[in-house]
Amino acid sequence: MSLLIIGSIALDTVENKYGKVNDALGGSAVYASLAASYFCENVSIIGVVGTDFPKEHIELLNCKGIDTNGLEIVNGKTFRWSGKYENMNEAITLQTSLNVFAHFSPKIPNNYKSYEYLFLGNIDPELQIDVLNQMKRPKIVSADTMDYWIEGKNKSLKKLLKMIDILFINEEEIRMLTNESYIFDAAEKVLQFGLKLIIIKQGEYGSVAITKDNLFFAPIFPIKKVIDPTGAGDSFAGGFMGYVASMNKFNYEILKKATIYGAITSSFDVEGFSVEILKNINRKQIEHRYQMLKQYTQFE
Amino acid sequence: MSLLIIGSIALDTVENKYGKVNDALGGSAVYASLAASYFCENVSIIGVVGTDFPKEHIELLNCKGIDTNGLEIVNGKTFRWSGKYENMNEAITLQTSLNVFAHFSPKIPNNYKSYEYLFLGNIDPELQIDVLNQMKRPKIVSADTMDYWIEGKNKSLKKLLKMIDILFINEEEIRMLTNESYIFDAAEKVLQFGLKLIIIKQGEYGSVAITKDNLFFAPIFPIKKVIDPTGAGDSFAGGFMGYVASMNKFNYEILKKATIYGAITSSFDVEGFSVEILKNINRKQIEHRYQMLKQYTQFE
Repeated sequence: MSLLIIGSIALDTVENKYGKVNDALGGSAVYASLAASYFCENVSIIGVVGTDFPKEHIELLNCKGIDTNGLEIVNGKTFRWSGKYENMNEAITLQTSLNVFAHFSPKIPNNYKSYEYLFLGNIDPELQIDVLNQMKRPKIVSADTMDYWIEGKNKSLKKLLKMIDILFINEEEIRMLTNESYIFDAAEKVLQFGLKLIIIKQGEYGSVAITKDNLFFAPIFPIKKVIDPTGAGDSFAGGFMGYVASMNKFNYEILKKATIYGAITSSFDVEGFSVEILKNINRKQIEHRYQMLKQYTQFE
Repeated sequence: MSLLIIGSIALDTVENKYGKVNDALGGSAVYASLAASYFCENVSIIGVVGTDFPKEHIELLNCKGIDTNGLEIVNGKTFRWSGKYENMNEAITLQTSLNVFAHFSPKIPNNYKSYEYLFLGNIDPELQIDVLNQMKRPKIVSADTMDYWIEGKNKSLKKLLKMIDILFINEEEIRMLTNESYIFDAAEKVLQFGLKLIIIKQGEYGSVAITKDNLFFAPIFPIKKVIDPTGAGDSFAGGFMGYVASMNKFNYEILKKATIYGAITSSFDVEGFSVEILKNINRKQIEHRYQMLKQYTQFE
């Protein structure tokens, strides 16, 4: 089945104790689509870049089977983010230059409008709603968000929550959104908007998938060294949605497996700066980690 | 098989947003032995109390099948701890009155010396070593510790680590002990002392069991409301060791199940102040949570 991903496409400058990259490929749509590409053959992205955006990045996406016909190239500079990590759990933003992203108004090409699966990466909830309104209602719509929108566009975000099936959110963010400190209480409140599933990301502690009647705890995949956490959440969501789209159904068993696949694509992402590891993996490596996580969590 | 538990026996005064208890039954040996009693028929404790220690507390332990012949009753007051919780992840100690515990010098009765399983609750590592030296080497020896001993009795603690099989430790504590921030690196360092297993407790995020060649991730059991976290670590260790002693063997499958049982006895403990819930559960309730945790973690 087909998966449409909308989000930022960025050139990131990231620095931490392991090194620094300048204007490296990044952005939520990039991380998510690369992760999804290992599961789903038909992944398309919607986004905007400037004329300075290196052609090889588009070639990379295409080479992974990602359709970039919905990628607008407009006069000006590509969105840039620079940040540093003092510890690996929190990015400190040094500079954000929206550039062409400031006037991004996504237009969904006609041939994308009947896609069955949609991931709304972390952008202004008004844009997320606008995208969803342009589509024939997909089978499953998921969205990511962040503290900035919870504070600044709270009404729009709550409107969005009534329209989607799955929310990816950090534990601090869901606490902020609900004023509940216990994540299970927080999730219960958010589920009242009508969502099927909330996935609460807990950084190094893994994630919890919460539905109205059920739960699933997923650990992280324990890698040797976290080199750069940038894109961890997006590559999680991409792996999750790519797997769901490839199965073309959604139930408790599928969501469990999708959450584990999300944890795994995310684990590859954080093993290198930018997409340097994520772009070069294969399904066999993913399945190897899947079997290991099974061993690390299954008991009689 | 027989499980010997040594640790504190206390009268705790605990206050948090849900209420307050005064001089309520507590202490590591109490929490651990109660949790263990649901798995293992032959649990004995070693500890000391003052003449003010209420008889009904001893009766409660005996009623759960816990042998208290190793409990010394000496002239003076019982060890008292008072603390409060502003959030449920961190106890703030208001007062510690060691009382009779200040001169505790555990003497192991002859009939305990050949017990096969030993849990050394969180006390001075010199006393933990002293207890172990009095025993015929048990099949499995586990120990708990805390930041106070890591800082103040570092040498003795390291000596102890060379003598035991299993260490229960918080993530902050293992970081402090090893100067490693990544828990898997920290565990690798501690395993070099010769231990079979390290269980890193991560509070609301569950725990990770780490051996030389393997791993196991255990979540918490998600309860409705955490009323009082006092004793969570001790009831975890007690459930774990009680299950191991009842199986009378130790391998990867047993350690997985023991970790889950530890998470479950701990979940009952935190549902009430002192031992009010932990003292009144049964194996059927434990098995119900076991099956639920299986559902919440198992995937195809």
